[in-house]
Amino acid sequence: MASNLKILLHSRPAGAPTAGNFQLEFAPVPVPAPGQLLLRTLYLSLDPYMRGRMSDAPSYAAPVALGEVMGGGTIARVEASLHPGFGEGDLVLAYGGWQSYALSDGAGLTKLDPALDPPSLALGILGMPGFTAYMGLLEIGQPKAGETVVVAAASGAVGSVVGQIAKLKGCRVVGIAGGPRKCGYVVEELGFDACIDHRAGDLPQRLARACPDGIDVYFENVGGAVFDAVLPLLNVQARVPVCGLIAHYNDTTLPPGPDRLGLLPRAILTRRIKMQGFIIFDDFGPRFGEFQQAMGDWVRAGKIKYREDLVEGLENAPAAFIGLLQGANFGKLVVRVSH
Amino acid sequence: MASNLKILLHSRPAGAPTAGNFQLEFAPVPVPAPGQLLLRTLYLSLDPYMRGRMSDAPSYAAPVALGEVMGGGTIARVEASLHPGFGEGDLVLAYGGWQSYALSDGAGLTKLDPALDPPSLALGILGMPGFTAYMGLLEIGQPKAGETVVVAAASGAVGSVVGQIAKLKGCRVVGIAGGPRKCGYVVEELGFDACIDHRAGDLPQRLARACPDGIDVYFENVGGAVFDAVLPLLNVQARVPVCGLIAHYNDTTLPPGPDRLGLLPRAILTRRIKMQGFIIFDDFGPRFGEFQQAMGDWVRAGKIKYREDLVEGLENAPAAFIGLLQGANFGKLVVRVSH
Repeated sequence: MASNLKILLHSRPAGAPTAGNFQLEFAPVPVPAPGQLLLRTLYLSLDPYMRGRMSDAPSYAAPVALGEVMGGGTIARVEASLHPGFGEGDLVLAYGGWQSYALSDGAGLTKLDPALDPPSLALGILGMPGFTAYMGLLEIGQPKAGETVVVAAASGAVGSVVGQIAKLKGCRVVGIAGGPRKCGYVVEELGFDACIDHRAGDLPQRLARACPDGIDVYFENVGGAVFDAVLPLLNVQARVPVCGLIAHYNDTTLPPGPDRLGLLPRAILTRRIKMQGFIIFDDFGPRFGEFQQAMGDWVRAGKIKYREDLVEGLENAPAAFIGLLQGANFGKLVVRVSH
Repeated sequence: MASNLKILLHSRPAGAPTAGNFQLEFAPVPVPAPGQLLLRTLYLSLDPYMRGRMSDAPSYAAPVALGEVMGGGTIARVEASLHPGFGEGDLVLAYGGWQSYALSDGAGLTKLDPALDPPSLALGILGMPGFTAYMGLLEIGQPKAGETVVVAAASGAVGSVVGQIAKLKGCRVVGIAGGPRKCGYVVEELGFDACIDHRAGDLPQRLARACPDGIDVYFENVGGAVFDAVLPLLNVQARVPVCGLIAHYNDTTLPPGPDRLGLLPRAILTRRIKMQGFIIFDDFGPRFGEFQQAMGDWVRAGKIKYREDLVEGLENAPAAFIGLLQGANFGKLVVRVSH
C-alpha cells in the first residue's frame, strides 16, 4: 500500500544547507474530508527562493517551521475529490510542497491543460520562473532595441528566459554563467551574443570587453562578485531589476572591509540608475494571464527555448537543492515525484 | 571704474574644500561682441552639487578645469546687449558662475518677471532646488496619502520643499536635520510631523520611534549615518529617490569593514524597494513649466514656505560653500553679488 513520503525541515542551516537539515518521514496517505481533495505529486519545483524559507531571518515570506514539510510548487494529479470543482484525474498546479501526497481545499489550485507536454513546463517557462523573467525584464528593465542587457545565472530557469526575451526585443545580450558547458549552451542554443564564464577568472575585464557600450539593463539573480563586475559598467539611466541574490543566500557573516555600502547609492545617483526588487506574484499577480498568452505563443513558435534538469525521486530533492545553490543544475531544476 | 571679481578653482580638494582651493582674481569687465550681452551678477546660487565639479572623479558632469571660474546658477541684469533678444535692464536666470560679470551669447538664459520679489526665488523654490524636490518626490517617490515620508537635510533648499509637498499630499512627514534650531523650524514653520536632530545621538532609535509604521518614501539627500538609520525602516515597496549624498562628497577613503555592500541589494530584493537616482534637468527638463505653474500657485497661496540664507559679497562665497558642506547654512544658500 502507498505511503506518503514527506521531507521536513529538521534544522535551520548555518551557511550552506546540508542533508542533515532535512528529515525524511513516511506517513499514511491522508484521506480527504468533505470539501477536500487528495493530490498525488507528479513534479516538484526546486527554486533558489526556498533557501530563504529555511531561515528565520526576516524576509519576504514566513519561514517554514521546524518539523514541517518544506514548501514548494508542484504539478499534481487529483487522486480523490470531495470538492465540487475538481474531479479524479484532473491535472493541477499546486503548492503541495516536498511530499508525495497532499490534501487541498482547492484554494490556490490552477487546473492545467492535460495536453501540456511535459506538464512540468508549468513549473518553469510557463510558470513562476518564466513569469519572473518576463515581468522583471519588460516592466522593470524596460529594454530598448540596441541596448545591452546582461543576465546573471544565464542558463538557469529565469536567466535563460530573460536573455531570450531581450534578444526578441532587439537587444545585445550578454550572459554570465558557470563553466564552459553552460556558456556554450547559452550562446549556441539560446542565441545570446556572448556568455562569460564567471569561474574562469578575470570576470571584470572579460565582462567589460563583452560590453563595449556599457550595460543598460542588468537582470540581477546573483550578487557578489558578479555584481561587483557589473556595477562599474552600468550606463547612465541603467535599470537593475533585482530578482535574486543566490551568491549571498548561504552567507553567515559580512565579508571583510573596507565598507563599500556607500558606493552603490553614489553610483545610483551619479549615473541615475534605477534598482528595483520584486516578488513576482506579489507585484504582478494580476498579469499572469497576459504572460501565459505571450510566452505560450513564443514557446509554440520555437522562439524561446527551454531546458529542464530533471531529478528522479523525491528522496533526491535535498541533494538536488543543495546543488542548485552551488550552480550544479543545468536548466530548470524539477524533481519527478511519481509517474 | 568697475572690475570683474572672479573666483577660480585653484586646486582640487582632498577631502573637505579649503579656502586655498579657490583663487580670487580681479579682471577688467568684459566687453560684449556682436551677438553677445554683458551680465552683471545679482545673486549666485551655492549648491552641494558644486563639490562634485571641483573633483575630477567620474561624475555626471564634467569637472571645472583648474584655473577656470567656478560654475554656478545666477540671477543677473543685462548691462549691455548686442543681442537682438535681450535689452539693457532685463533680469535673467543664467549660469554665469562665481564672478561679478559674465558674457553670454543668450544660450540657456531665461528671462525673469521683473515683479519676482526677491528675484533669488528663481535660484531656490522656483528654480533648480524646488524643481528637484517636486519631480524627485512626485515622480520617483510617488507618495500616497497616509504614507510616511522621511526627508534628510529637511531644512535645506530641497528637503524643505519635499516635506511640504508631501504634507500637501496627505503624508506623515518626518524630517532629519542638524541641530535644534533647524528641527524646530522644520516642525513649527514648515509643518512637518516630526524632525529628528541627527547631531543629538541615537538616530536609529529616535527615527524608528518617529516612524511607527515604517518608511514608505525616503528622499535621499545625505547618505552615511542617516541612510544607515533609514534602511532598516524601509517598508515593502518603499521608494528612494536619490538626489544627493552630501555626507560623502568629502570622502577620500572608504570606511573600515565589514563590507556591507551586499546588504543593500538584499534589502531591495526582500522588501521590493525601488531606489532611483536622478539629475533634475537631464531627466525632467521638459516639465519645468509644469513645475513653475504648480509651485508658483503654492507659494502665492502661502502653502509652501521658503527660507533663504543670504550671504553678502561674492568674496564670501568660498567660506559659505565650505560651510554648506558642513550644514552651516540654514535655508537656501544664496550670495548677493551686487544690488
